[in-house]
Amino acid sequence: MSGNGFGHLFRFTTFGESHGPAIGCVVEGVPPRLPLAESDIQFWLDRRRPGQSRFTTQRKEPDAVRILSGVFEGLTTGTPIGLLIENVDTRSKDYSDIKDKFRPGHADYTYWKKYGIRDYRGGGRSSARETAMRVAAGAIARKILGDSIRIRGALVQMGPHRIDREAWDWAAVEDNPFWCPDRKAAQSWKGYLDKLRKDGSSIGAVVEIVAEGVPAGLGAPVYNKLDADLASAMMGINAAKSVEIGAGLRAAELRGEENADEMRMNPDGSVRFLSNNAGGILGGISTGQDIVVRFAVKPTSSILIPRKTVTVHGEDSDILTKGRHDPCVGIRAVPIGEAMMACVLADHMMRQRAQCG
Amino acid sequence: MSGNGFGHLFRFTTFGESHGPAIGCVVEGVPPRLPLAESDIQFWLDRRRPGQSRFTTQRKEPDAVRILSGVFEGLTTGTPIGLLIENVDTRSKDYSDIKDKFRPGHADYTYWKKYGIRDYRGGGRSSARETAMRVAAGAIARKILGDSIRIRGALVQMGPHRIDREAWDWAAVEDNPFWCPDRKAAQSWKGYLDKLRKDGSSIGAVVEIVAEGVPAGLGAPVYNKLDADLASAMMGINAAKSVEIGAGLRAAELRGEENADEMRMNPDGSVRFLSNNAGGILGGISTGQDIVVRFAVKPTSSILIPRKTVTVHGEDSDILTKGRHDPCVGIRAVPIGEAMMACVLADHMMRQRAQCG
Amino acid sequence: MSGNGFGHLFRFTTFGESHGPAIGCVVEGVPPRLPLAESDIQFWLDRRRPGQSRFTTQRKEPDAVRILSGVFEGLTTGTPIGLLIENVDTRSKDYSDIKDKFRPGHADYTYWKKYGIRDYRGGGRSSARETAMRVAAGAIARKILGDSIRIRGALVQMGPHRIDREAWDWAAVEDNPFWCPDRKAAQSWKGYLDKLRKDGSSIGAVVEIVAEGVPAGLGAPVYNKLDADLASAMMGINAAKSVEIGAGLRAAELRGEENADEMRMNPDGSVRFLSNNAGGILGGISTGQDIVVRFAVKPTSSILIPRKTVTVHGEDSDILTKGRHDPCVGIRAVPIGEAMMACVLADHMMRQRAQCG
Amino acid sequence: MSGNGFGHLFRFTTFGESHGPAIGCVVEGVPPRLPLAESDIQFWLDRRRPGQSRFTTQRKEPDAVRILSGVFEGLTTGTPIGLLIENVDTRSKDYSDIKDKFRPGHADYTYWKKYGIRDYRGGGRSSARETAMRVAAGAIARKILGDSIRIRGALVQMGPHRIDREAWDWAAVEDNPFWCPDRKAAQSWKGYLDKLRKDGSSIGAVVEIVAEGVPAGLGAPVYNKLDADLASAMMGINAAKSVEIGAGLRAAELRGEENADEMRMNPDGSVRFLSNNAGGILGGISTGQDIVVRFAVKPTSSILIPRKTVTVHGEDSDILTKGRHDPCVGIRAVPIGEAMMACVLADHMMRQRAQCG
Repeated sequence: MSGNGFGHLFRFTTFGESHGPAIGCVVEGVPPRLPLAESDIQFWLDRRRPGQSRFTTQRKEPDAVRILSGVFEGLTTGTPIGLLIENVDTRSKDYSDIKDKFRPGHADYTYWKKYGIRDYRGGGRSSARETAMRVAAGAIARKILGDSIRIRGALVQMGPHRIDREAWDWAAVEDNPFWCPDRKAAQSWKGYLDKLRKDGSSIGAVVEIVAEGVPAGLGAPVYNKLDADLASAMMGINAAKSVEIGAGLRAAELRGEENADEMRMNPDGSVRFLSNNAGGILGGISTGQDIVVRFAVKPTSSILIPRKTVTVHGEDSDILTKGRHDPCVGIRAVPIGEAMMACVLADHMMRQRAQCG
Repeated sequence: MSGNGFGHLFRFTTFGESHGPAIGCVVEGVPPRLPLAESDIQFWLDRRRPGQSRFTTQRKEPDAVRILSGVFEGLTTGTPIGLLIENVDTRSKDYSDIKDKFRPGHADYTYWKKYGIRDYRGGGRSSARETAMRVAAGAIARKILGDSIRIRGALVQMGPHRIDREAWDWAAVEDNPFWCPDRKAAQSWKGYLDKLRKDGSSIGAVVEIVAEGVPAGLGAPVYNKLDADLASAMMGINAAKSVEIGAGLRAAELRGEENADEMRMNPDGSVRFLSNNAGGILGGISTGQDIVVRFAVKPTSSILIPRKTVTVHGEDSDILTKGRHDPCVGIRAVPIGEAMMACVLADHMMRQRAQCG
Repeated sequence: MSGNGFGHLFRFTTFGESHGPAIGCVVEGVPPRLPLAESDIQFWLDRRRPGQSRFTTQRKEPDAVRILSGVFEGLTTGTPIGLLIENVDTRSKDYSDIKDKFRPGHADYTYWKKYGIRDYRGGGRSSARETAMRVAAGAIARKILGDSIRIRGALVQMGPHRIDREAWDWAAVEDNPFWCPDRKAAQSWKGYLDKLRKDGSSIGAVVEIVAEGVPAGLGAPVYNKLDADLASAMMGINAAKSVEIGAGLRAAELRGEENADEMRMNPDGSVRFLSNNAGGILGGISTGQDIVVRFAVKPTSSILIPRKTVTVHGEDSDILTKGRHDPCVGIRAVPIGEAMMACVLADHMMRQRAQCG
Repeated sequence: MSGNGFGHLFRFTTFGESHGPAIGCVVEGVPPRLPLAESDIQFWLDRRRPGQSRFTTQRKEPDAVRILSGVFEGLTTGTPIGLLIENVDTRSKDYSDIKDKFRPGHADYTYWKKYGIRDYRGGGRSSARETAMRVAAGAIARKILGDSIRIRGALVQMGPHRIDREAWDWAAVEDNPFWCPDRKAAQSWKGYLDKLRKDGSSIGAVVEIVAEGVPAGLGAPVYNKLDADLASAMMGINAAKSVEIGAGLRAAELRGEENADEMRMNPDGSVRFLSNNAGGILGGISTGQDIVVRFAVKPTSSILIPRKTVTVHGEDSDILTKGRHDPCVGIRAVPIGEAMMACVLADHMMRQRAQCG
């Protein structure tokens, strides 16, 4: 396979560059007869869209998605769903600077080394613009999962500032520009991020995605474990540098009797876990508990502070990246992480049905 | 795909349960005319083999690998390489306890929920025994990578005890039973782990894998990024709960100017990075720097301390797991992480050659 | 995988229905820095376009292809190439007849049974309209193959009328509306097909595709043999009912000494085969001779002669299909077969480079 | 993927050379809790085993299969099933002749050109010995399909001698050494083949495989159509040179009104087709009729008649192949074709369940 698609039975394949004419994708394997309209997808795209607060890039994209196939009279037909978003705000700017210089921390240098050519406009294929298609695919995946599975994401750390997990309130997530579940933290992050923005700097963050209502039994050991597929999904998001499941890195510090989630029967015959260090996955298979994934996002490297770099001509140089960008790209990663979770679960739900009925 | 193979062009597919007659795998896509003998594979298997110190499980497996195909007169032929290891030390013990009870923190419950049946003997398919085949495949992957790429792993944290990174000495790694690169830390870990073992408990750990000499340009954006594939590879290792690339989780706390690795020209025309927060990967493609991956391994759940659980019959119960096991499974994860790194790199090297020549 | 893509390293994934807003595809794995313009693709689309003679459907589609990604300043970038063709001539006709009735010999019934829903307009996803995307992908595949490999197709049989193979003239293929390499046969086919068209009937045909200049060594035994992949490629073309390689079905009648192609050395040290019953493939791997594939195409089932059928409501009925259609769909299958040959070869060329350098 | 496996959800991956220590495979995706014993597989292997009459190669292989994993207490567990057959009759013969010469019509030359090395002993990987693993996988596939689907094969043509289809009697198939459904033809073939054998020659054949009871709806348009996957499956069988579905090549000669299978309602509400030119597949999806596939097998090239060839050293030479071989390899292809049909159907049944429930 050639790297532009994700998933097996539920699979999407994307194309498009930041400043090309359009981005798009093909979503395959969707079960037939699901109600699906463009507005179902647009809803999630609008959540992801940049430029909605001063804390994200000011690129103004309507991101109006068109369904080009696979839906007939409001229902999916089982054939591939073609999605397209025209790029509108590809302002003809002067690229002379980044055309010849590699921005440190960006994919400029590696695309150049890999392909010997690069579309330097707006980051080309490596731009976060591509993630709109992940969100679109995720919207369709949610249709497959149905209402009994709920997927939500939140920003749980911005720079050194962690939320107070005791203060977690899902309702708060929609009330602040950071998807922060801790109202107090959200309040303090505003000043912190304003300061960073004024400095022309940026900061990393940690995103947490939770899926509730996932039945036990999803996951294909031993190389398409549910956690391995989630790790691939989240690490593949632009700027991600770590992925954790459940207790995650902290599991390294736990003793066996602290880590293993004990079990008890519920009166109704179902099983109850007394904790969730596993993050809802054991042996690569879902336990029926909440699936909990976290991933760290590095600070954007497009900053107003000059950095040392080299040119395509092999000369030392300095660079500072002007123009619109995000002081904390982690914010925009929240809906993307949700979408990838939805896609992984939809795929595994279909795989489970195929093998185990 | 059905979850028992890893890789695309360099691909291996494994089979086998802990207490079945044998484990094995098929390694596909190996370039022809590479020298390969059973001893080349055995060398790495022996490193991984448990029971070599008092700090790993006392299961005594000779783990003698047989090459069943794909090699002729000492050279690979380009056809699939079949590998087989007979299980020897599958002592006929009494399984009556774990037969009916789910061990908390184990895959017992999830296999049961997924398949409605489970081979409970020694963990069946979910046993770490399967990882011998990853190590075997990794040995072949190293042959493909050649001598210019060097892959090494180390245990950098045991429970709360981190190594002193300033004291890192690769030579030390071979000198202690923990693959610890910090001699002083290794010394202190002995007592720590002995104590845990005597308590009948266990502890988590963090493994770090470093690949030197990897050329720039490996990785298939945007869904088979090198880091995404490594995340899948490492998270798929038994008991892994987190994966980090380069600065990893710490990237969340960095500012843009701290995180982005600056670049300078070397006198010989090559490019030099002034730091390696990226862990050798930008935009999912290798930079030419060291590839640095870390993963956390949870403590084994097979402990001598009774834990609350339920039975297959839906009753509350308690369980304690007698018999041989590892107080710190992270130790045995080191050679497995190395092997998975080798497999990912070999696959991407071939993919790169296919597309970009 | 979910059935809408073809190929491994060189891979394309299509979407779109006959009467939806557009058809499109994503072409992945294309090597970077190949010159590519829309006109390169349009050239081959124009060859395939229906309505160019009275012998093919009168649907008038400009089939103007747009490249949406993967090309920068006239060169491929190695990233996926998104292609789009808007559907224009989707005349709003009355579908009340085929809406409820299954056309015998069509996919109407099977889509209904598979998906429980179908886009009946113009055949929906099962329409030959989709094949425009195969031709487009094939145009890109030809760029990868380069000028040393030449792929050409011809119609070698129409109904019971076979060409005289002694009269084969590739130049003739471009001179008649049938891609017929035998000028005399082409002349006589005109009257034959006019008669069929007036009868409101249709007829089957046999297409032959020849690839010259293919190096020895392409093909991945034993389940992605070059011939097995070609068989999949050609049988997957709409209305195809048989695929043959080289002597094909006639090989059943040959004795060993007649069938096996003898070999001799050329003065320049290359190998010469004294015949080509193998069709250029032995053991699933190319021999260096011409690759020769033939496939039979059934007559279109959309005819003006009433046929017995049933309705979605479970009633017996009769149907005759009015409107534009092809009296011999085999004609239009020629450029599609060429395109699929190009795609298979491009994929295997890259696979060969990956494994064997 | 690297060419040694077949299928997607139900997938098997094989390894092994004709004269290596063993052949084997891994069968993935098998649903759990199916009864499976070695004898279930052995039954089909015994049918395929050569040396059972004077009309097939006299290689004497017990072909005793061992199940190494994936079965517990007589039931499949859902984990991969490892199968192994030790090679026994690999008589140490003198290979000096074929070591340096390429047998015309064999894969000798192409493996050499592809890999630059070849295991010349008994044909190495390209030997029909590998097909034992297809039969073994097919035995498991049959378990998945259950009793309502019946797959049978027959030899319908040997050289120029076709069976009388009116005389077709499935019971006859088991009664003669050719799997011939026409008792009279079988009788006459004996003399014909004895004569060929005495001449040291060989002959081609045509195999027909029929699957009854296949539900409508199987097949994944438009690139994993059921017929495209069957074409790949059958063309991938050693020595196959053509594949036909239903009317096959003869469809080229049919008019639309002759070809399209008319439909009528049965009193019980089911649909009845009045003919089966489609071979049970329309638009790549099963219709519910019998699936009918035919493939031509070329004559073996291992004959006692000297043929012109070249050596690895680039010299002209002659060769005749002594030792055991089949005068009509088509005979042994019958159970292999049945097995491949079973594997394709099992895979598509699971894919259908995954997407359409």
